[in-house]
Amino acid sequence: MEFKVGQIFATDEEKLAVAIAEAHLGLSEGGIPIGAALFDKDGALLGSGHNLRVQQGDASMHGETSAFRNAGRQRSYKHVTLATSLSPCWYCSGLIRQFNIGKLLVGDDINFKGGQDWVQEHGCEVTVMNDPGLIKVMGDFIIANPTLWNEDIGED
Amino acid sequence: MEFKVGQIFATDEEKLAVAIAEAHLGLSEGGIPIGAALFDKDGALLGSGHNLRVQQGDASMHGETSAFRNAGRQRSYKHVTLATSLSPCWYCSGLIRQFNIGKLLVGDDINFKGGQDWVQEHGCEVTVMNDPGLIKVMGDFIIANPTLWNEDIGED
Repeated sequence: MEFKVGQIFATDEEKLAVAIAEAHLGLSEGGIPIGAALFDKDGALLGSGHNLRVQQGDASMHGETSAFRNAGRQRSYKHVTLATSLSPCWYCSGLIRQFNIGKLLVGDDINFKGGQDWVQEHGCEVTVMNDPGLIKVMGDFIIANPTLWNEDIGED
Repeated sequence: MEFKVGQIFATDEEKLAVAIAEAHLGLSEGGIPIGAALFDKDGALLGSGHNLRVQQGDASMHGETSAFRNAGRQRSYKHVTLATSLSPCWYCSGLIRQFNIGKLLVGDDINFKGGQDWVQEHGCEVTVMNDPGLIKVMGDFIIANPTLWNEDIGED
């Protein structure tokens, strides 16, 4: 899938497709397949990214924080949509709450469910999409890499 | 102040001093003066860092996340101490909760108070130190740079 900053992604499905493409990119690099992307009020892509724990040894770069970094400095996130392939963990849910990100699209809350209800209680509009292909990719990855997965979510 | 990875910082005051040194380093670079550091169960420095919004245009690098990144991949944070110059925002509080960081030292909860009570409720041992010199540095910075400060905590 081709995508670039500034390109318009009009629908929720189109936005989630960017996060899914990032997840697949991460997997192709030997990483954990979680991706995310941020869009402005018009659906223009601000930035996207994927988990970089394996590739860069960077424990701080979850899919969501990677996309947030790549979107650069923004003055407000009130009208921003964050699409993420997997339900945001507490770390990434805290990001959403602190920066008052307006809308969240969740590609999969079957394999993992983080703080999506909590951010919704604090004013974020949450849509759970549960894409079957994405759920299979993440589920297969967790089964094949349980230690790595537990490390990424801080489970002993 | 000189400090290096692996060096032992035995007391809470010594640990906080590393976070304060990182805050001053950030200020000297023209950045937001917030720093943090992680220590293992023996007090050995795992990594430290400071806010990089201005210096690298990186909105994802708060003091705490910068220190977390610089500490590298860790299998467990149960016995880790995070010292931070300023009370952790929701983003950084989410990091603490997700990775079950065992102990938090807060250098200043006067200028800003984030999710420190919330992480305490979820099992993190929190010590508020309120260092007068640090409180003055951060307070002066916020007065002099209100727009930049509000951007960093996602306030409109």
